[in-house]
Amino acid sequence: MIIVMKPGASEEDLNRVITKVTDRELKVHLSEGKFRTIIGVIGDKKMIVGLPVEVMPGVEKVVSVTESYKLVSRGFKHENSVVDVGGVLVGGEGLVVMAGPCAVESREQLLESALAVKNCGAQFLRGGAFKPRTSPYAFQGLEEKGLIMLAEAREVTGLKIVTEVVDVQSVEIVSAYADVLQIGARNMQNFQLLKIAGKSGKPVLLKRGLAATINEWLNAAEYIMNEGNYNVIFCERGIRTFEDYTRNTLDLSAVAALKEISHLPVIVDPSHGTGRWRLVCPMARAAVAAGADGLMIEVHPNPAEALSDGSQSLTPENFAVLMSEVAALAAVMGRKMA
Amino acid sequence: MIIVMKPGASEEDLNRVITKVTDRELKVHLSEGKFRTIIGVIGDKKMIVGLPVEVMPGVEKVVSVTESYKLVSRGFKHENSVVDVGGVLVGGEGLVVMAGPCAVESREQLLESALAVKNCGAQFLRGGAFKPRTSPYAFQGLEEKGLIMLAEAREVTGLKIVTEVVDVQSVEIVSAYADVLQIGARNMQNFQLLKIAGKSGKPVLLKRGLAATINEWLNAAEYIMNEGNYNVIFCERGIRTFEDYTRNTLDLSAVAALKEISHLPVIVDPSHGTGRWRLVCPMARAAVAAGADGLMIEVHPNPAEALSDGSQSLTPENFAVLMSEVAALAAVMGRKMA
Amino acid sequence: MIIVMKPGASEEDLNRVITKVTDRELKVHLSEGKFRTIIGVIGDKKMIVGLPVEVMPGVEKVVSVTESYKLVSRGFKHENSVVDVGGVLVGGEGLVVMAGPCAVESREQLLESALAVKNCGAQFLRGGAFKPRTSPYAFQGLEEKGLIMLAEAREVTGLKIVTEVVDVQSVEIVSAYADVLQIGARNMQNFQLLKIAGKSGKPVLLKRGLAATINEWLNAAEYIMNEGNYNVIFCERGIRTFEDYTRNTLDLSAVAALKEISHLPVIVDPSHGTGRWRLVCPMARAAVAAGADGLMIEVHPNPAEALSDGSQSLTPENFAVLMSEVAALAAVMGRKMA
Amino acid sequence: MIIVMKPGASEEDLNRVITKVTDRELKVHLSEGKFRTIIGVIGDKKMIVGLPVEVMPGVEKVVSVTESYKLVSRGFKHENSVVDVGGVLVGGEGLVVMAGPCAVESREQLLESALAVKNCGAQFLRGGAFKPRTSPYAFQGLEEKGLIMLAEAREVTGLKIVTEVVDVQSVEIVSAYADVLQIGARNMQNFQLLKIAGKSGKPVLLKRGLAATINEWLNAAEYIMNEGNYNVIFCERGIRTFEDYTRNTLDLSAVAALKEISHLPVIVDPSHGTGRWRLVCPMARAAVAAGADGLMIEVHPNPAEALSDGSQSLTPENFAVLMSEVAALAAVMGRKMA
Repeated sequence: MIIVMKPGASEEDLNRVITKVTDRELKVHLSEGKFRTIIGVIGDKKMIVGLPVEVMPGVEKVVSVTESYKLVSRGFKHENSVVDVGGVLVGGEGLVVMAGPCAVESREQLLESALAVKNCGAQFLRGGAFKPRTSPYAFQGLEEKGLIMLAEAREVTGLKIVTEVVDVQSVEIVSAYADVLQIGARNMQNFQLLKIAGKSGKPVLLKRGLAATINEWLNAAEYIMNEGNYNVIFCERGIRTFEDYTRNTLDLSAVAALKEISHLPVIVDPSHGTGRWRLVCPMARAAVAAGADGLMIEVHPNPAEALSDGSQSLTPENFAVLMSEVAALAAVMGRKMA
Repeated sequence: MIIVMKPGASEEDLNRVITKVTDRELKVHLSEGKFRTIIGVIGDKKMIVGLPVEVMPGVEKVVSVTESYKLVSRGFKHENSVVDVGGVLVGGEGLVVMAGPCAVESREQLLESALAVKNCGAQFLRGGAFKPRTSPYAFQGLEEKGLIMLAEAREVTGLKIVTEVVDVQSVEIVSAYADVLQIGARNMQNFQLLKIAGKSGKPVLLKRGLAATINEWLNAAEYIMNEGNYNVIFCERGIRTFEDYTRNTLDLSAVAALKEISHLPVIVDPSHGTGRWRLVCPMARAAVAAGADGLMIEVHPNPAEALSDGSQSLTPENFAVLMSEVAALAAVMGRKMA
Repeated sequence: MIIVMKPGASEEDLNRVITKVTDRELKVHLSEGKFRTIIGVIGDKKMIVGLPVEVMPGVEKVVSVTESYKLVSRGFKHENSVVDVGGVLVGGEGLVVMAGPCAVESREQLLESALAVKNCGAQFLRGGAFKPRTSPYAFQGLEEKGLIMLAEAREVTGLKIVTEVVDVQSVEIVSAYADVLQIGARNMQNFQLLKIAGKSGKPVLLKRGLAATINEWLNAAEYIMNEGNYNVIFCERGIRTFEDYTRNTLDLSAVAALKEISHLPVIVDPSHGTGRWRLVCPMARAAVAAGADGLMIEVHPNPAEALSDGSQSLTPENFAVLMSEVAALAAVMGRKMA
Repeated sequence: MIIVMKPGASEEDLNRVITKVTDRELKVHLSEGKFRTIIGVIGDKKMIVGLPVEVMPGVEKVVSVTESYKLVSRGFKHENSVVDVGGVLVGGEGLVVMAGPCAVESREQLLESALAVKNCGAQFLRGGAFKPRTSPYAFQGLEEKGLIMLAEAREVTGLKIVTEVVDVQSVEIVSAYADVLQIGARNMQNFQLLKIAGKSGKPVLLKRGLAATINEWLNAAEYIMNEGNYNVIFCERGIRTFEDYTRNTLDLSAVAALKEISHLPVIVDPSHGTGRWRLVCPMARAAVAAGADGLMIEVHPNPAEALSDGSQSLTPENFAVLMSEVAALAAVMGRKMA
């Protein structure tokens, strides 16, 4: 941390700040310029986080030099992490695809979806049993019945199951059925949920919050890893901006940025990222070209009948086209379809 | 709902859409133009929400005419709602002030804060016992110990207590101590928490999410009211934008907008809204002038020692100045300091 | 400027950076920590702006300590600047009000508007003769004819005229008729226009860009002042965010922030800031309470006939209500209606 | 356009609206529901734009069904437009690459850059002679001297020249030297500049504004085409959001969206889009995979010496890597390196 003193700060101001810092067993390095003094603070990162000097008299600005996360960073672990989900590797050489309906609606709809995405080469079936919805009057999901259907679909197809945990209570029951716990965008900073998901030991797919910076997202993953659970997968799904042609603004730069900063795998959800099925295929291709480790795609046997998010779902036919286009690009990127 | 067909939509496309709508026992009104047909959908709002026609062939656009919320709107209840918190009325003639430290740090700090804000005329003591923090290494709150201190401060000062519930499990214990449950910005769309807070019967202060539209915020309040709990107070605390001089962008238009759309009381938190203590007083004045029913202000006996948010906290001296400036404006607005 | 070196930066990296800095006749102050070295750069601000060290090997981060503007800051001039527009003072004790239609549409419409706003106590008539419009097919303004009508309205009412310059060419002609040149939001970083407006010597009302930070806005004003024209008035008119209930998000914190940072006057346009006439009056009150030096309000004798922005225009009757509400608040704020 | 009347609107309200519409020689289609009446407005698009009914008594909402642009849309011209720049085709089978320094700094720097990018396979040399800069104290460009150097570099290398016009006056002189006029992000809604650039007849590269919606961007292009100049190339360069790890948020969905809506070519500038040279290569790959017709890349012989934007410039070596990675992807996308 660097503390920049105001041009007119007094000797007394300076000493008070130094005392405050050294009281926490941190060290200071002074750089006294003609107009102002700059204080470098050195020591244990945990002691530096939240050091309350910004409001002290004579202080102009506090600049953080080191980040508040540690376990998620390439500084902590240099090589890429690979998350092993019952033999399917996320973040390895293979590109993984998670596909299926937004919500589990019925046994037939789910099995039909599962068989379709399996045939096209997906490794994971996605589908919400618990659905967070803006309006209390919208369809809220089949809950445990939906989880049972997901487990049956795994039985039939061999696909791994990824499904959302919407609150702390659902972690136990979802863990009993799913292979990967998904934490949704609205819950990215539900810190209790992050901790409990961390303790569950299950792989966690962490979606980016609608207004979350990359830095906050990294810290959210740090919450999970801090519980000893290193199996975290980031999922970019678009951020909220002024643009309203698309449902969200898919931030593919975040994929490249995370690959620089962190060792954890990153996948992309262009279905929520765009909200328009016609844009899903180009954005899936772009995600792979940007270096994503996989994709999450909404596929519905009959989007016009979907109880939620129909307008962003692909038909099985369009999903097949997507898979073949993505496979061609994956090859160029040196990746296999896992 | 209005369904706009494409210029070239076929008779078959049109009939399929009509069948889909009437299957839900909704009625249609056709308006056939020279270039395109427009379908008005009429009937029970709950049946219309989520009607999956947007992806049907021949459909260009679907426009929602009615909102998905009901109980929160002035259409449902015309006169202002007043939330009675043990005799202190929020949303009535009086302007309420909730003040105190960001986090409960110690018995001394809390009592000192409580006495200070009581002396200046606040009716509520605020202070977090459970603290949601971006980094897992930052101070996370005193939890139940903090709640006990809050209850003691109420005993001593007579102030009502408002404090945050960070997850579903904490609702029961916080309800045992607090007068008002606060739902924080990061939890505004934690729908399980909204439901449980609704069921608790306690008054709920619902902060706006960092990236929440006014429409989503109204729907979040609808979740609480839908559980039979009509004691909901909105709290504007700034939204996330590109501007980084302030911590957030305080959206006072939202206050005026909510007063138009909804009968529920609205208060404003300029401390989180700006993140800079020098801007708190002008924004508190502006909030009152915009028609807010109250304020939530961070006050700390010694901001430079605060374990969180020191840079946006007022000293008791500055808080006294704020109270006198606000009182002068409140009088012009026809309101008493409650 | 502070240059933070990477933990593993070599002696050679460090020396290269030092040479680069000292080559520009700037001085360095080294602060060598256990893990990293920090370089403070001291000297002439103009030499520091744009110093290209960020990409040099071994450099982690560059932090700007001093701002790139100077003339607009309170450091340069401590007391408030008052802009004298032919005897009407902007930024003094009096609160100024600029009102009138969005666009000059006809002689009758303009005179009727001018008399109405004059009667209610406004000092300035606003109205666009050159209209920047999103679509090339929308009404583009009456151009010089409109300017002549504005000058006639000044003759009749004694109101000062503020109207927009949309490009470099129009500065000369608009200067011939108007008392204040308005630079619109879309032109806030049209740097040639800023320079020419600066050279004109006319008072300039500088609207904030839709996506402009406060820092960029200050720099835009610096362009004008750098030409020797110190008569600059800031006008907050809302920024673009994800919220779509309002046309823009009126950022009143920016008013309080500018009053801290700069000596220049600040006014607020709640008409464009909200885009909804029902929100104009509460936001006008809030602006005054936040410390604004004046208001710009759209008033139209018949909003339903307006050729642009009808939905945000007040009728003369509603404007009269606004003026009386604002006057009551201004008194509390220690200001007269100018 | 669809006009939605309020539930309680009177017969008189309705008639007033109908009169207003039919006065413009537009037709109405009434759809009278149980609770409200909906009016469809049919007729000439130019008459509908700006029809001021939103504020009329009894009107709840006005919904635009048709867009305000026409010439830019696929409805107007179905097949892709190809812009011919002296034999180099933009928007055809070939992928075009425009590369070079942010600013023209010297003859040596420019020629070195030009030869480097030519050798790597670029078809266009980019480089600013007129530089719009946030601060008036930053380097503002070499102006005509820079243009002469660009023309010389064309002479030497055969590269086409694309360079920015920053205001109406510079169009003539820039047209005398450049092959393509670039309109920068800050000028996207400088409507006079759009018109003059349209009249120049030169191909125009239209960068997206920092806060411009796709709809506004299309309308800006419509201004140029409305002057009879059909040689418009869109350039996505990132939008302003809350994320600050990157300089802007590159919105690649906009590429796919434009390819759906418009027949005009679209290129992508990942250098400004990310502001970080390490992210330029992955985002260039992603742009091509998303369907972009070309790239604009900042290349500098020595980024650490660059007078502007050094931190986002590639060295010639890194640019060569980018070109080979892009070529591999282009082949899969069925495109040649032009």
